[in-house]
Amino acid sequence: MPTAIYPGTFDPITRGHIDIVQRASYIFTEVITIVADNPAKDRFFTTEERLELAQDALAGISNVRVIPFQGLIVDVLRETGARTIIRGLRALSDFEGEFQMAFTNRKLYEQADTVFLMPSAEYAYLSSSLVKQIAHFHGDVDKFVTPAVARAMRQKREG
Amino acid sequence: MPTAIYPGTFDPITRGHIDIVQRASYIFTEVITIVADNPAKDRFFTTEERLELAQDALAGISNVRVIPFQGLIVDVLRETGARTIIRGLRALSDFEGEFQMAFTNRKLYEQADTVFLMPSAEYAYLSSSLVKQIAHFHGDVDKFVTPAVARAMRQKREG
Amino acid sequence: MPTAIYPGTFDPITRGHIDIVQRASYIFTEVITIVADNPAKDRFFTTEERLELAQDALAGISNVRVIPFQGLIVDVLRETGARTIIRGLRALSDFEGEFQMAFTNRKLYEQADTVFLMPSAEYAYLSSSLVKQIAHFHGDVDKFVTPAVARAMRQKREG
Amino acid sequence: MPTAIYPGTFDPITRGHIDIVQRASYIFTEVITIVADNPAKDRFFTTEERLELAQDALAGISNVRVIPFQGLIVDVLRETGARTIIRGLRALSDFEGEFQMAFTNRKLYEQADTVFLMPSAEYAYLSSSLVKQIAHFHGDVDKFVTPAVARAMRQKREG
Amino acid sequence: MPTAIYPGTFDPITRGHIDIVQRASYIFTEVITIVADNPAKDRFFTTEERLELAQDALAGISNVRVIPFQGLIVDVLRETGARTIIRGLRALSDFEGEFQMAFTNRKLYEQADTVFLMPSAEYAYLSSSLVKQIAHFHGDVDKFVTPAVARAMRQKREG
Amino acid sequence: MPTAIYPGTFDPITRGHIDIVQRASYIFTEVITIVADNPAKDRFFTTEERLELAQDALAGISNVRVIPFQGLIVDVLRETGARTIIRGLRALSDFEGEFQMAFTNRKLYEQADTVFLMPSAEYAYLSSSLVKQIAHFHGDVDKFVTPAVARAMRQKREG
Repeated sequence: MPTAIYPGTFDPITRGHIDIVQRASYIFTEVITIVADNPAKDRFFTTEERLELAQDALAGISNVRVIPFQGLIVDVLRETGARTIIRGLRALSDFEGEFQMAFTNRKLYEQADTVFLMPSAEYAYLSSSLVKQIAHFHGDVDKFVTPAVARAMRQKREG
Repeated sequence: MPTAIYPGTFDPITRGHIDIVQRASYIFTEVITIVADNPAKDRFFTTEERLELAQDALAGISNVRVIPFQGLIVDVLRETGARTIIRGLRALSDFEGEFQMAFTNRKLYEQADTVFLMPSAEYAYLSSSLVKQIAHFHGDVDKFVTPAVARAMRQKREG
Repeated sequence: MPTAIYPGTFDPITRGHIDIVQRASYIFTEVITIVADNPAKDRFFTTEERLELAQDALAGISNVRVIPFQGLIVDVLRETGARTIIRGLRALSDFEGEFQMAFTNRKLYEQADTVFLMPSAEYAYLSSSLVKQIAHFHGDVDKFVTPAVARAMRQKREG
Repeated sequence: MPTAIYPGTFDPITRGHIDIVQRASYIFTEVITIVADNPAKDRFFTTEERLELAQDALAGISNVRVIPFQGLIVDVLRETGARTIIRGLRALSDFEGEFQMAFTNRKLYEQADTVFLMPSAEYAYLSSSLVKQIAHFHGDVDKFVTPAVARAMRQKREG
Repeated sequence: MPTAIYPGTFDPITRGHIDIVQRASYIFTEVITIVADNPAKDRFFTTEERLELAQDALAGISNVRVIPFQGLIVDVLRETGARTIIRGLRALSDFEGEFQMAFTNRKLYEQADTVFLMPSAEYAYLSSSLVKQIAHFHGDVDKFVTPAVARAMRQKREG
Repeated sequence: MPTAIYPGTFDPITRGHIDIVQRASYIFTEVITIVADNPAKDRFFTTEERLELAQDALAGISNVRVIPFQGLIVDVLRETGARTIIRGLRALSDFEGEFQMAFTNRKLYEQADTVFLMPSAEYAYLSSSLVKQIAHFHGDVDKFVTPAVARAMRQKREG
């Protein structure tokens, strides 16, 4: 029975991400949410924080597991035995990069198949970077993230 | 366990369609391929012919069923109990119409979720209408369709 | 004080169109909604019906007038003294054709300026042709058009 | 020394087409302009008229030849020994169809290579169908086509 | 009578920006040009310089005011009472980000409406970053910016 | 007889670049591959290394020369007498930036014409940055670059 992985940076996890996981959880036996643990500048939250916020946000969905990972996505597939990568397709701008990544993953690991899901229309234009930008100027992010994430963003900013 | 439907006109079924069904058949318990039975001008093959050619082309995949259907896609979902619609996402030009259709289906039937799969790179720019255009000028379509479809196209043209 | 024209086929007028007119009515002194009276095959409603349904749907907005027109959009501008054309920009697929039309209108009439407005997110993927397609298969179009339009579509279909 | 073909419907030839041929004529030894002789509804000019108007419009460019052709583009390549297809890339909307056609031509004839040229910015949004639409409503097409074409369009319309 | 804001970084203001303001000034009673005062790396000019160059470039348009601002665009709307945001839509690449921003602004402030205007075709592919790149290699930027801006860029580079 | 330049960063040169040069070498008398020598952060290889790897990768094509260059592309045209710039058009995402650059180059140097070539379908989604990302996580890049480049990437990473 098929397992799927849902890789991302989740800096932080948004209501759009949660929506995608929920839709995926109906189709796949297990959805392993992969929090990228790659060292990168410009991160708002640490890997630990991103992991914890994602776990909290997805706690209500039973067949979901959240783990950190450092490396290539195809290595996660090889290690977990999964062969499906889930990606949310919000809008046109995603399209090209996603296609490139999906074809590359197939070249690196032939069984790797990417499945695109569409979030609810109300999250179609939502992104983590947008949320961070709004938070930066003390805008209200409650419509875009869970209360726990909103709180963590406020603490971080004031901290 | 999830069933998915794969709707299309399949006039005629191409190697790109077969590729998508194969990928879908790994994920879903059953893939019901729906051949649109809507009266439309400019069809090359009749519904019966399209149905038969699709059945022949997909005969090697065990968990696939091919049926004709007249009506709205969401009605197929309601009747079959399936809630997932499969679509191949070949390239940019598909994107917008697919998004529109997917959002509309959700508005008509809340459980309807569309899942996009990517065909193999070699079929990324393949379409039924292109195949018909090539056949029209006696070009060789063997790279794009099964031998049975190629034969049927020749007979039809000469017929 | 600026007048704007809002040209379209409106076959039939949708909630997305109404939304655009409402937004435009805040900015412009008068919004003249132009119902294209060009003979074309594949029309669902006659010019008179399209005009009447648009007038009914827009009756609640005070600074809006609905008139039929046959000819080039720039001729409407010249006749009415308006210099602004309003267009709804729903999604990417509109973009290119709209750009082409806007640049062409400027070439034909230098003062012609096109202003693009965005409908509410819930109408972002709505189009008249989609509504007609749903109605064709007896789907429910109440979310997409006014009750009067829905009624007229049913009568037409059964008529 | 390389020969290139420039295929199109040219119904009618526009200043944008002429601009592309001019640019191509600097690069290639010979530019064979191919006027599609495929029977199609909705043509404004006959093949003979389209051919004649194109020959007239391109008469000033020495290394250009205009010929009619019926069939697949790759067959022209095989017959003429050319291996380059020239296409004008006006804007995004062309892109996808052009890509599809270019990849398909390569599949049908491996040596077939498509070269995209960009017209002058002032013709970036110009198309034959737009010109016909303007002419239909007695708009002025002199900015878009040669005087001979404009005259022919008037005669045809009044015909 | 409607006021509109035109937000941007204007680093530096180009002829494309001026063109947009001019078009907007015909429609709106007042166009408040907002120069982003957000601290960011990679700025060529300081906020004061960008403000001054924009004021100089727009001095000839009577109903335009140029002010600096730090924060969210919707806060400018709330403070000024304006409800319209003007954006220039140069080309496809703008589209998606603009859509995202426009929908987000509406979510943050329901009355916020974004109006897209198209610059003159000759500025369709112009951007501030392109101008800076050309100036960096001592290219001639006079076609893209006002003499005052060109002078300031030279001074800055040599400074 | 026409010379063309093929400018790029080539950090590093990929099989997609080689494919484009090969196609261009059939059309043009000489293809001058220009390795950008502009100081930029985030370069993986130095200008010398990029130059050397490109020269090695293109050694088998007789009418190709590889040179470093610092400045505007139009300056290379002026210096070499060439008037054609070659660009690979992999996919949609390239399109807009390429158009902008091409139009800008024409504004700076009227004779500058950009010619777009399409790489083989198998390189359609390949980019230098993707190759670097894969190498970063010890993925196998042999399908994307020459053995010499793969070796240089390994040495650099371990170095």
